[in-house]
Amino acid sequence: MPTSRLDQVINLAKRRGFVFQAGEIYGGSRSSWDYGPLGVALKENIKRQWWKTFVQGRDDMVGLDSSIILPQKVWHASGHVATFTDPLVESLHTHKRYRADHLIEAYEAKHGHPPENGLADIKDPETGQPGSWTEPRSFSGLMKTYLGPVDDEEGLHYLRPETAQGIFVNFNNVVTTARRKPPFGIGQIGKSFRNEITPGNFIFRTREFEQMEIEFFVPPADAPEWFDRWVADCEAWFHDLGLKAENIRHLDVPDGERAHYSARTIDLEYRFGFQGSEWGELMGVANRTDYDLSTHSEASGKKLEYFDQAANERYTPFVIEPSFGLTRSLMAFLIEAYDEEEVPNSKGGTDTRTVLRLDPRLAPVKAAVLPLSRNEQLSPLAREVAQSLRKHWAIEFDDAGAIGRRYRRQDEVGTPFCITVDFDSLEDQAVTVRERDTMQQQRVPIAELEGFLAQALVGA
Amino acid sequence: MPTSRLDQVINLAKRRGFVFQAGEIYGGSRSSWDYGPLGVALKENIKRQWWKTFVQGRDDMVGLDSSIILPQKVWHASGHVATFTDPLVESLHTHKRYRADHLIEAYEAKHGHPPENGLADIKDPETGQPGSWTEPRSFSGLMKTYLGPVDDEEGLHYLRPETAQGIFVNFNNVVTTARRKPPFGIGQIGKSFRNEITPGNFIFRTREFEQMEIEFFVPPADAPEWFDRWVADCEAWFHDLGLKAENIRHLDVPDGERAHYSARTIDLEYRFGFQGSEWGELMGVANRTDYDLSTHSEASGKKLEYFDQAANERYTPFVIEPSFGLTRSLMAFLIEAYDEEEVPNSKGGTDTRTVLRLDPRLAPVKAAVLPLSRNEQLSPLAREVAQSLRKHWAIEFDDAGAIGRRYRRQDEVGTPFCITVDFDSLEDQAVTVRERDTMQQQRVPIAELEGFLAQALVGA
Repeated sequence: MPTSRLDQVINLAKRRGFVFQAGEIYGGSRSSWDYGPLGVALKENIKRQWWKTFVQGRDDMVGLDSSIILPQKVWHASGHVATFTDPLVESLHTHKRYRADHLIEAYEAKHGHPPENGLADIKDPETGQPGSWTEPRSFSGLMKTYLGPVDDEEGLHYLRPETAQGIFVNFNNVVTTARRKPPFGIGQIGKSFRNEITPGNFIFRTREFEQMEIEFFVPPADAPEWFDRWVADCEAWFHDLGLKAENIRHLDVPDGERAHYSARTIDLEYRFGFQGSEWGELMGVANRTDYDLSTHSEASGKKLEYFDQAANERYTPFVIEPSFGLTRSLMAFLIEAYDEEEVPNSKGGTDTRTVLRLDPRLAPVKAAVLPLSRNEQLSPLAREVAQSLRKHWAIEFDDAGAIGRRYRRQDEVGTPFCITVDFDSLEDQAVTVRERDTMQQQRVPIAELEGFLAQALVGA
Repeated sequence: MPTSRLDQVINLAKRRGFVFQAGEIYGGSRSSWDYGPLGVALKENIKRQWWKTFVQGRDDMVGLDSSIILPQKVWHASGHVATFTDPLVESLHTHKRYRADHLIEAYEAKHGHPPENGLADIKDPETGQPGSWTEPRSFSGLMKTYLGPVDDEEGLHYLRPETAQGIFVNFNNVVTTARRKPPFGIGQIGKSFRNEITPGNFIFRTREFEQMEIEFFVPPADAPEWFDRWVADCEAWFHDLGLKAENIRHLDVPDGERAHYSARTIDLEYRFGFQGSEWGELMGVANRTDYDLSTHSEASGKKLEYFDQAANERYTPFVIEPSFGLTRSLMAFLIEAYDEEEVPNSKGGTDTRTVLRLDPRLAPVKAAVLPLSRNEQLSPLAREVAQSLRKHWAIEFDDAGAIGRRYRRQDEVGTPFCITVDFDSLEDQAVTVRERDTMQQQRVPIAELEGFLAQALVGA
């Protein structure tokens, strides 16, 4: 069976230390993943680009970092306790629980039509026998924990399923301390937790995940216009960092399928290449109207409103929410960047080269410094060059194995530049710089190396 | 009652939007705090400096980002389920629970000697009546949650109380994929959770907090030397970013008081100025020996060891752990930077100026662009200047109020430079740059502003 492109990317990610299974030595977990040395660097670079574009780079945005654990009342007011649920049924044979809608979808996918008699037609996935099911019961996607000395109702808290609510409850704090008025937005990057019944597709659907969210507050009448602008700005960000237009599509989420707070939602879907369904949600832009500020105003008794002095008018702003999956974005950038090409080898034939064509701003390692061979003269000079560059960038030093093999190792993790220190370097104090995509080489004096990289890596 | 320096810093932090109480509109929580626009910027700058110094900047370090939720087995093996506990007693009057050791400490602090008859001498803190107490029972500091459809033993997971274990369980993954050999270390920044019975002292002791941790793996014989080097390197980092030597002291934690895994621990304590006890732990360096790798090897059946090819010897490395509190570091940097001074005012007298003398690398806003007055000609030019600088730095624009007042607003949040656009600017295309600490001003052409700031803010 031929390996899919997605499988190749996942293999590379595991083999080179982008992503490890959490708790792997104890059998692992599908709930979450750990990010290795290259993965954490790539993830941080994505965060940094996002923050530079959407927070630092804009005069109408500020940042925030709110807590993961918020009081129960926040989640009652937001509607999550009541509505953030899935319908589950239990098999009377195995006492395992399943999402009723997933069982029905799987039946449809297999038979081409929905089950005529509902769940009664669906076999137990474990035993293969005709199933016997309980009535669907609603199951909360919120993860709970207890604070304080006793596991009681008073100590019950929830881990946030979205970073958004931490922004809404701080609306007045930010307006007052940062002296902002609509239109303005608050951006936040952080972890969220959802008790997904069926985590899967590598880092795509996990119970612990990272989001990059913006809540953008606008006068109600301007909401549709800002909605469109945000959809365009978000898509432009992905394009600018390398995702091709043909691999992104819009899904205008129809009535009845949107979250309880949303008057309109457009999801940007990426062509992840999953088995079955090729596309998956990368991020979404929602018009949350005044739902959140209003419900929190009502529940808390504090007025989360804005007083427009010029118009002498008090109003509750509408919220446009661009919500990005950070780890999904990372997965998309990896898939998009993955390439294999035939290149000439030294024997007159060709070899297959794997290369991650990551934007240099995202590349986890900006340059690798390689002595031509492991040598008493070359290695110290190469180490010195590497160390001098580390104050600005993530730099690798590698002196193990043939130089061609070391180039390949850097290519497949997306390192934009390989800097080779050879015997001539001892004389001319210059090095050979090889560019990842073209494999072209040029000689650069060591004294000019920092300036060369600063220009080539601008914005990184 | 005169306000303490600590109280002034806390007031400033709340008033200017560094730190908000989590869930404030619902009555708030002492468990955690939210970081506002300036707080998140300061916190990110600290993380960035730490990462540059200890991970990116060193050839013997790599990064990692592991999950908050790890399988139960990890915490059984690490000893946390068994030993990460506090002794609690319950008042038979109020049925509230207290840490027995804290009650006894409070008694000692008040009376100058320990209670002669143990708990029997201690009054109920709520009623003031002679107390009636249960026997101490051990209470876990681990916060639990449930994954999957049922809240049962299989679904029970713990939120990590330290990021360290996520590093240990990935030891083999990192050695293999990043091809590392001792001495080398793995650094990680992330949230941890501890069910503290008595959170308090602002952001000092919270249930949700952030750590910056390094696990540095060394040949066992070299552990004492590396321990000393890490203590020195960590202290140097704080000094370099502004904490004065007189405000840091070493605590060599005596036998019997160290964590269960540690053969030696030195805490760096900072003079936070708390009521009662002036000093508080900022970070600690521990010699965790081979405790963690050995216990995980035993529990998982995987050998977390290193094979030294040169010596043809297999061994379990010792671990030196420098563990930093990120939010504590932030608090220390704020306290250290806080200053009040008398400066001449326009009426021939003096005013008190509050200034945060933060290192420019840490300052949340690098420069503020201020039109001399809110004016149809000055404001657009000032906005243009601000926008051009935002691609590199966090920049504020402020045109509200008298220029002197705007300078003071920037001084008290530590902005290193104020850039004033005045009517001359329309002619000479230059601006006045005012330096925060000296308040000295100089004229800089707009075309040279980016270069001027790049030099003044090097490393930021």
